[in-house]
Amino acid sequence: MKYGIVMFPSKQLQDKANAFRKRYDPHYALISPHITLKGAFEATDAQLNEYNEKLREIAKTTAPLKLTIQKVSSFQPVNNVIYFKVAPTEELSTLHQTMYENIGQEQPDYSFVPHITIGQKLSDDEHSDVYGSLRMEDVSYEETIDRFHLLYQLDNGSWTVYETFRLEGKDL
Amino acid sequence: MKYGIVMFPSKQLQDKANAFRKRYDPHYALISPHITLKGAFEATDAQLNEYNEKLREIAKTTAPLKLTIQKVSSFQPVNNVIYFKVAPTEELSTLHQTMYENIGQEQPDYSFVPHITIGQKLSDDEHSDVYGSLRMEDVSYEETIDRFHLLYQLDNGSWTVYETFRLEGKDL
Repeated sequence: MKYGIVMFPSKQLQDKANAFRKRYDPHYALISPHITLKGAFEATDAQLNEYNEKLREIAKTTAPLKLTIQKVSSFQPVNNVIYFKVAPTEELSTLHQTMYENIGQEQPDYSFVPHITIGQKLSDDEHSDVYGSLRMEDVSYEETIDRFHLLYQLDNGSWTVYETFRLEGKDL
Repeated sequence: MKYGIVMFPSKQLQDKANAFRKRYDPHYALISPHITLKGAFEATDAQLNEYNEKLREIAKTTAPLKLTIQKVSSFQPVNNVIYFKVAPTEELSTLHQTMYENIGQEQPDYSFVPHITIGQKLSDDEHSDVYGSLRMEDVSYEETIDRFHLLYQLDNGSWTVYETFRLEGKDL
């Protein structure tokens, strides 16, 4: 089965992202707006139990994180993905790195750029049009995130939450 | 904010339900196949914390539940909803009742008929056609469910998981 690990931001931020995703993201109906901590990976039932334990430990020692949205940005020329840029912080990077060190064997495809996708699978022309107008939007926003979720993927491509992990660590 | 409490069955059963929902359920993209334990209710942030604690207690004293799908059924003439009929058990009824006694003030609209919706908002003619063919399907299935989820609704009508509660009680 295919699993993934994400953080869902607040309802307010998800609604904001969905206003764009509805038009520009074909994954709109498959998953709520999110920050990916670990992309899709395969796991057996036995591995799942082991990962579950590890995620529990990670959550216990990780403090709630500050999430700051800075602006609309794009991964072009790597790919035509438009996203809310999340300010990179040491806390987020550490959490991302810890996931890859503890869960599965894969290594990340790209260096970690925390983001919330609002548009993807756009043609070059669409990307240029959409990004041209969205990059001017003021989307600055700040909140605290205190949980992440382990999800699995259904045959239709949509994702269901398997488990929630609350960040229970203390700030140093 | 609007909340709800559901159980997601296994991936296998969700895939089975989605094969029908894709054609017959306009809520297909808004939420994964589920058994509703408590339908949509409003809660403030303060109430949310209180409910969270109560749900944690309920989960701690509730044992994992046996889920048996018996057949395809319909709520007609009450409404044109077609569903996988879940065998009613004392354990499921008790969990449902406990939710209503502890969370919010609302009382259930109908008596509790545990089910997984696979078709809704059908015209009378559609309902008659679809139910006529689906009622013959052999959908019998059995599994154990060991968790439920608290969800909130986004502005677009879709649902995001807020928290997972694992059933940690022991069988008597």
